[in-house]
Amino acid sequence: MTQTAKVKVVLGQNNYGKADVRLFKVFRDQARHEVKDVWVNVAMEGDFQAAHVLGDNTDLLATDTVRNTVYALAEDGLTGSVEEYGKVLIRHLVQAGPKVSRVRVSFTEHLWQRTVSDGQEHDHSFSRLMPKHTAWVEGDAQDFTVSSGIDELFILKTTQSGWEGFLREGYTSLPDTDDRILATVVTAKWEYLPGEVDYDEVWQRVYDQLLSTFGDHYSPSMQNTLYRMGEAILTRCPEISRIHFSFPNRHHIRYNLERFGLENNNTIFHADAEPYGLIEGWVERVQEGEA
Amino acid sequence: MTQTAKVKVVLGQNNYGKADVRLFKVFRDQARHEVKDVWVNVAMEGDFQAAHVLGDNTDLLATDTVRNTVYALAEDGLTGSVEEYGKVLIRHLVQAGPKVSRVRVSFTEHLWQRTVSDGQEHDHSFSRLMPKHTAWVEGDAQDFTVSSGIDELFILKTTQSGWEGFLREGYTSLPDTDDRILATVVTAKWEYLPGEVDYDEVWQRVYDQLLSTFGDHYSPSMQNTLYRMGEAILTRCPEISRIHFSFPNRHHIRYNLERFGLENNNTIFHADAEPYGLIEGWVERVQEGEA
Amino acid sequence: MTQTAKVKVVLGQNNYGKADVRLFKVFRDQARHEVKDVWVNVAMEGDFQAAHVLGDNTDLLATDTVRNTVYALAEDGLTGSVEEYGKVLIRHLVQAGPKVSRVRVSFTEHLWQRTVSDGQEHDHSFSRLMPKHTAWVEGDAQDFTVSSGIDELFILKTTQSGWEGFLREGYTSLPDTDDRILATVVTAKWEYLPGEVDYDEVWQRVYDQLLSTFGDHYSPSMQNTLYRMGEAILTRCPEISRIHFSFPNRHHIRYNLERFGLENNNTIFHADAEPYGLIEGWVERVQEGEA
Amino acid sequence: MTQTAKVKVVLGQNNYGKADVRLFKVFRDQARHEVKDVWVNVAMEGDFQAAHVLGDNTDLLATDTVRNTVYALAEDGLTGSVEEYGKVLIRHLVQAGPKVSRVRVSFTEHLWQRTVSDGQEHDHSFSRLMPKHTAWVEGDAQDFTVSSGIDELFILKTTQSGWEGFLREGYTSLPDTDDRILATVVTAKWEYLPGEVDYDEVWQRVYDQLLSTFGDHYSPSMQNTLYRMGEAILTRCPEISRIHFSFPNRHHIRYNLERFGLENNNTIFHADAEPYGLIEGWVERVQEGEA
Repeated sequence: MTQTAKVKVVLGQNNYGKADVRLFKVFRDQARHEVKDVWVNVAMEGDFQAAHVLGDNTDLLATDTVRNTVYALAEDGLTGSVEEYGKVLIRHLVQAGPKVSRVRVSFTEHLWQRTVSDGQEHDHSFSRLMPKHTAWVEGDAQDFTVSSGIDELFILKTTQSGWEGFLREGYTSLPDTDDRILATVVTAKWEYLPGEVDYDEVWQRVYDQLLSTFGDHYSPSMQNTLYRMGEAILTRCPEISRIHFSFPNRHHIRYNLERFGLENNNTIFHADAEPYGLIEGWVERVQEGEA
Repeated sequence: MTQTAKVKVVLGQNNYGKADVRLFKVFRDQARHEVKDVWVNVAMEGDFQAAHVLGDNTDLLATDTVRNTVYALAEDGLTGSVEEYGKVLIRHLVQAGPKVSRVRVSFTEHLWQRTVSDGQEHDHSFSRLMPKHTAWVEGDAQDFTVSSGIDELFILKTTQSGWEGFLREGYTSLPDTDDRILATVVTAKWEYLPGEVDYDEVWQRVYDQLLSTFGDHYSPSMQNTLYRMGEAILTRCPEISRIHFSFPNRHHIRYNLERFGLENNNTIFHADAEPYGLIEGWVERVQEGEA
Repeated sequence: MTQTAKVKVVLGQNNYGKADVRLFKVFRDQARHEVKDVWVNVAMEGDFQAAHVLGDNTDLLATDTVRNTVYALAEDGLTGSVEEYGKVLIRHLVQAGPKVSRVRVSFTEHLWQRTVSDGQEHDHSFSRLMPKHTAWVEGDAQDFTVSSGIDELFILKTTQSGWEGFLREGYTSLPDTDDRILATVVTAKWEYLPGEVDYDEVWQRVYDQLLSTFGDHYSPSMQNTLYRMGEAILTRCPEISRIHFSFPNRHHIRYNLERFGLENNNTIFHADAEPYGLIEGWVERVQEGEA
Repeated sequence: MTQTAKVKVVLGQNNYGKADVRLFKVFRDQARHEVKDVWVNVAMEGDFQAAHVLGDNTDLLATDTVRNTVYALAEDGLTGSVEEYGKVLIRHLVQAGPKVSRVRVSFTEHLWQRTVSDGQEHDHSFSRLMPKHTAWVEGDAQDFTVSSGIDELFILKTTQSGWEGFLREGYTSLPDTDDRILATVVTAKWEYLPGEVDYDEVWQRVYDQLLSTFGDHYSPSMQNTLYRMGEAILTRCPEISRIHFSFPNRHHIRYNLERFGLENNNTIFHADAEPYGLIEGWVERVQEGEA
């Protein structure tokens, strides 16, 4: 290769940090233990020009130091929700890193329920649930933006869902149906209005309402169910300003048994994994005085 | 490459079939729907010499036909447990395939619970649980061997577990502990004594007893807890002849905070993913008259 | 639950489409076949208010129709790069969907190389490579924004990398090193200057330069190597306006063998999977007349 | 629950050890470095009755000690193939564990190739290949059984494959074809005849022959191609006694474009992921004097 004169370039937006830090905390000051099981990602922004361009690490926090920090602050800092712990981490890191001006922390919290024997909940034995509590906190030392979410919640209903009256054109082959299985894996994310929030309590309310609305209506489309869920959750949770859903449509395809001389009265389905419809959108609270 | 004279070879043990068939059945003859959500693998054995050696497909069932069969027989054949459905599939395939002498069917059943709103269970809306019901059925037209199992059940306890007094030699660096977190992902598999079995009901009993025993003792090792679980399950489930556990030891490593001048009273842990200890074994019923 | 009056909400940003459409095309007009193996995601934006709020599907393209379209247009439309095919898809969908105003298409292209026997490349037999060619095309009927990328390219070097002179504070425990293993899994994404582009040819040039730069210097940090790669690629590829890298630092930790009376002259490492440092940033071309 | 008298049980087959130990070794005594990147699983068998039944750990090697051992022995013991290193590990562990009578070690070796710039191979910069070298070694202190394998090798051919003349019965709906895409992900495993073996060199020979045979014939079925591959490899590799293949049939389904008034001359396919046909079998050398 002929050596070309180097062109003029600059460093654009950049960040660094530690990902997939697996923090587990036991609250054991009472006989009835509690746990927090959370995967943490930390990304720091700031003026890291010297490291990138000159190879000068002088002012860089090592990502290994970030990892130590996640564990070290957890004793005093992780006492309630992961959202609150995010603020603790950010406040510390903006102080600790001379060039750090802004930090983003994200969490995936695994949820554990107490095991039950003979109707009794156990004090220190747990089994893990499927859905996860996700959270994102971003800020400098003063101001924070917080979002929370639900991930890997598999839901389905076996009836009260259809898909009819849609556009027919040259490449359309799907027949109408007024009775199909509706199945999805919920990924939800919401933002908050200003003010104090009990994040774990709101999470539970969103979760309950989401399941409740999913079952309470005939769904003419995933889009309409998305909108109804958003409306119901914003109604029940005055703390939330807006909510986003990402709904993969996990198609359950009625298997053609008629070709074998058999009936299939909407009982036998192929649960297809790919491709899948993907329906995404925000539902937003209209503030007083807005249209 | 110089062409070498071909050596003499023969076809050894072989099988073929369809894997990852995703069958979903709704029981909708009552207002309160039920579902079966199951991934099915079918492997057929027999004299398939002609296809392998001569390229003669005359007597081969297509794997696509096997797939159709899994759906076609489900209407009448999948009325209870997947274990019973396995027998239906095997009986049919040994008949349908002129060269098929033996069939193995395995299942991964995803478990769904009804959603609950205001204390009421929903009729046709469900959310998925984490653990799975696995099953293996093998046989010719007459005789079947059935095994059942549990998979992806995450359990942990925050205390009442230790690891002490083990062998110390040249490469040993782990300190003793009498208070650690014990965490695993259960993979269990059991076999049955001869006789009628209500497979789904036994599965629930194994599941309940497993959780109950996990929490009821101080565990000096994963090995001892494995043995205790086996003993308790064989006691409670007279249908079962023996049970195997595979226990990855999901290490929760107490984080060294002392080097930062902090205390860690067994509260802050790194949940390590790899490497992991792996403890496996059978616990077996001693039949009357045996040692 | 007491029924609350519904609050006022609106639909915010939203999109829908089909994800994970697995398109495979064979170019077989010559004895030497070529293949394109690509996973396609399509997301459409526009005025979908009626479907969300009223449950009126009249103007909606079914996601199943989108899937059919991906296959139907491929015969004439996928003749070169996936980037060009993205434009074809977008032009069609903006026409086909009465409410569609904007479409985003993303691709993951799996790369296959011809098998080789006795030094001869085969005409129609292939094996798959590890890295992937990713691409994003977005637009309305007139204007398109195109980005391309590399994914799942695992690279490492066994020396000529260090990490020294970084900030030391209260939670820092990592020692300095001037000889470590540097390993990462490249995720790169770049954007183009206006003008005609041969996307597949540029991809190959980026790939080659990336590997070449990775090996040609002593790396004082992942950050500095990121910047050098960006600079070298922008130098070699005048079509590219800026490039982003996401570099997980796959730590290879020198194993402490000294405690067992053994030496470890930087030869024996634990290849840790998590947590990992994550270094991300853009390197951008400075246009003429800019600072 | 009423307390039931405990039944009589015994410990059956059991083993324990460490899984997913990620060992990385650099050979750096020459300017041109070499690497071994291998995930190691160790399972020990023996009389572990006391630990299971009595909770007595006295004679148990900790799995953490097993991990240390994998790293500690690598300096002197891992000088060539992983198969040879397996023997070193087994010899040591049978000595180190007072109750250990038998050890199984398995390996997944990731393969790295040197990066190339301007036609020159780099001394210490590498990129990772897709296929893996697997190995299993089992034994007591004296005798070893060794198997080797290939994993995650994706291959396909775009023509010279068909599936015709198979059995037609009530649930058969697949049409015949004499021109389809044949695609699979190879999992192979082979065993050796007694005698000295250069494992890495044999692995390369198997790999080359497998690719060569895959492309050299019209395939009337996956079964016939499996048999041909086995025969060709046993011919080229006199060290091997028998070889097993597991071939998922990654179906590429010709997309029905005719319903849209388009032609599809075997060019446009849906690359289906599930379900898949699964074809498995052994091809075995007939020893002199055998039938």
